[in-house]
Amino acid sequence: MAIRAVIFDVFGTLVDWRRGVAEAAGPVFAARGIGLDPAAFADAWRDEYRPSMERVRSGGRAYVPLDLLHRENLDRVLAAQGLADAFDDEARAELTRAWERLPPWPDTVAGLCGIRARAFVGPCSNGSVALMVRLARHAGLDWDAVLGAEIARAYKPDLAVYRASAAALGLAPAEVMMVAAHNGDLHAARAAGLATGFIARPAEHGPGQTSDLGAEADWDLVVDDLRAVADQNGFGC
Amino acid sequence: MAIRAVIFDVFGTLVDWRRGVAEAAGPVFAARGIGLDPAAFADAWRDEYRPSMERVRSGGRAYVPLDLLHRENLDRVLAAQGLADAFDDEARAELTRAWERLPPWPDTVAGLCGIRARAFVGPCSNGSVALMVRLARHAGLDWDAVLGAEIARAYKPDLAVYRASAAALGLAPAEVMMVAAHNGDLHAARAAGLATGFIARPAEHGPGQTSDLGAEADWDLVVDDLRAVADQNGFGC
Repeated sequence: MAIRAVIFDVFGTLVDWRRGVAEAAGPVFAARGIGLDPAAFADAWRDEYRPSMERVRSGGRAYVPLDLLHRENLDRVLAAQGLADAFDDEARAELTRAWERLPPWPDTVAGLCGIRARAFVGPCSNGSVALMVRLARHAGLDWDAVLGAEIARAYKPDLAVYRASAAALGLAPAEVMMVAAHNGDLHAARAAGLATGFIARPAEHGPGQTSDLGAEADWDLVVDDLRAVADQNGFGC
Repeated sequence: MAIRAVIFDVFGTLVDWRRGVAEAAGPVFAARGIGLDPAAFADAWRDEYRPSMERVRSGGRAYVPLDLLHRENLDRVLAAQGLADAFDDEARAELTRAWERLPPWPDTVAGLCGIRARAFVGPCSNGSVALMVRLARHAGLDWDAVLGAEIARAYKPDLAVYRASAAALGLAPAEVMMVAAHNGDLHAARAAGLATGFIARPAEHGPGQTSDLGAEADWDLVVDDLRAVADQNGFGC
């Protein structure tokens, strides 16, 4: 079956959240005389990401947009670092907006542009529509529609997110390819019936990365540059 | 308050549904020796639009995408014209796809492009995401996100549609302007707290149009060419 749409994980797959958050935090910390390493701070903030979504996935909490989880997680990280008094509400809100201004990987913009010439494209991220729209403007990403967690009111890897994204496009799951740098994301997408594409992002977690360094299953497509996706056969929107 | 997003009615406001449907139906009718005037057929099909949505708006039917209503309405119109035997399922599905291939008005593409340079833009239509995505590709419309009926699972003029569209963008209603060629749409948008922009489309219903020939209230903006919207002050995304 022809692939008529390609949907994408965003954080780590299309944009470098670690560098983006660290570069936003660096000057803020310096201005306050805080010695915390900005990259370590980015890692600590991101470490709260999965547990915070897990409370929604497990049914312990109603769906709330990721922006709110990011903000709550920031409060938690600052408290753990003894920095609760150093940031007022507005400073925390501004720091949380770092997630709207993350830099794309070098191949992202050209890769997406090539894929969009042959298929519908959309983010299938845990980020909210509001966050995806702002990030797309910042990073230069052009989408046909913003899909993902918010339209399903659930978080990946809940299969409902992949299924709702294909359904919103009016396509069967098998007509949609999920592209991600995370094997776990693709396991779920495959379980939901989607085609799967893996792209390694070995610097996502910095120089010491140990996970997702390569494809861990026979994904339908494995590339090391997003520009290679559009070269495959079988696309057509 | 600055307008940070402009959202749009689509059928009639941005695209010429009457000409598009008539031009799709014309050759199909000719090939079958059907003497029905294609423009009258387009009008008859569109006449079923509001009543079919009213069944959802009144709570008598759960939300279903507009594509399904379009198809059911086609069945009704063909039956009323004594043409039920002339179209099989595939022919009806193909004719329904005419709504994905409607022509933009002459000012639409340039107008949207100018507005998008200054604000977020999205359709706030009763059309589904799948329909909006295909229509956007055909007509050359670039959106930040597809908003409207499907994300609210309700049909305009239900205020929930306007409110959900602003909320999805992470904006207050007053930061969003609804642009439409229909006064009724803008009355509802205003009741939901949005800013309002009216553009006359006096040929939407053909040469005999009697409704929506001009602004019927003190809308925040009244233009006769979409390119004039971006010239206004107060935008900024």
